[in-house]
Amino acid sequence: MLGSIAAPAPSSTKPVRVLVIEGQALFAKALCQVLASDPEIDVVIATGGTGVTGRDVTPEAFHSVYEKEIAGFGELFRWQSYEKIGTSTIQSRATAGVAGGTYLFALPGSPGACRDAWDGILIHQLDNRFRPCNFVELMPRLRER
Amino acid sequence: MLGSIAAPAPSSTKPVRVLVIEGQALFAKALCQVLASDPEIDVVIATGGTGVTGRDVTPEAFHSVYEKEIAGFGELFRWQSYEKIGTSTIQSRATAGVAGGTYLFALPGSPGACRDAWDGILIHQLDNRFRPCNFVELMPRLRER
Amino acid sequence: MLGSIAAPAPSSTKPVRVLVIEGQALFAKALCQVLASDPEIDVVIATGGTGVTGRDVTPEAFHSVYEKEIAGFGELFRWQSYEKIGTSTIQSRATAGVAGGTYLFALPGSPGACRDAWDGILIHQLDNRFRPCNFVELMPRLRER
Repeated sequence: MLGSIAAPAPSSTKPVRVLVIEGQALFAKALCQVLASDPEIDVVIATGGTGVTGRDVTPEAFHSVYEKEIAGFGELFRWQSYEKIGTSTIQSRATAGVAGGTYLFALPGSPGACRDAWDGILIHQLDNRFRPCNFVELMPRLRER
Repeated sequence: MLGSIAAPAPSSTKPVRVLVIEGQALFAKALCQVLASDPEIDVVIATGGTGVTGRDVTPEAFHSVYEKEIAGFGELFRWQSYEKIGTSTIQSRATAGVAGGTYLFALPGSPGACRDAWDGILIHQLDNRFRPCNFVELMPRLRER
Repeated sequence: MLGSIAAPAPSSTKPVRVLVIEGQALFAKALCQVLASDPEIDVVIATGGTGVTGRDVTPEAFHSVYEKEIAGFGELFRWQSYEKIGTSTIQSRATAGVAGGTYLFALPGSPGACRDAWDGILIHQLDNRFRPCNFVELMPRLRER
């Protein structure tokens, strides 16, 4: 279930720990809760399970643990994909949010879609040099009250 | 309340049964539940009741029965409409989802907006020849576990 | 907490009363409830608290009082911002909805972002001359049953 530890964002001066969940997220909710509460994990990236069939349960699992939804992530991913795959982009229910001080991203399962999400959005937002702002620089403040 | 049976997607080799709900969706929630549980219905398309006035209750009715929301549908519809009607596009709360193995789409009530949603999105996604993927080919898998 | 009464939409023939909430929306939920139930207030515009840090609680407060969410507002704001700030736009959780017959808008805290939201969306939608439709002309119908 837990596939690999991804390399940190290429040019980040702060190493960003990213845990990648590959394949069908059968126990996505439980995983999210564990991962979101592990202080060693800054970012969870899940792949797969974002479609509309009966087995595509990742978005519901993610929503069940979100403290804050980042609606713009799925919007932007689908908008960027529209140029490539037209109306098929709406089949993707890619989603992101914050829980327990951890960023959670759910990407589609296809390697191409994952690459697009990384190259189009995450490579920038997980790079603490990106301007005007990025997700890395906000990590210390995710839990502030 | 139940207006008409729409023609199947033009070039689909599998006839897609589409039920169109016209006018004010006063009993939209009950309708959604009935339609979503009828195995003869593959797709429900409701028109009207997607605005912001007190009588516009279709989105709330749809959301109350969704097992899966297809957020990209409303996003893409509004984005396509932005070219035509500018910021007025945000008045549309068009929405889509899946319940009981049935696709549910809520379109605005104006004929022009319905035509735009059909021509811009549904004619493709309800055609099982559309690539890289379409909603028709996934119908047998909506209920899989 | 309550900053100022904004000028009505420039060319509106019906004065639109707009209450602007500036700064951190610590008591946003309570404020929303009060403002949404005050018949003298047509529109609430809150600024700040729409990011992803622990103190950014405005979207959750707004969602807790929405009777109807206007999903297209945040979508369009982020899409318009994408041209200016690239992927950083997804950090904005700008949101809008209707509660108690009042329009509620949550904008980011930066003056630039507020200006963009006003110039790009609100100046049109809070102007009852804007076509094909605008939020002002619908105000008498927000509470209809």
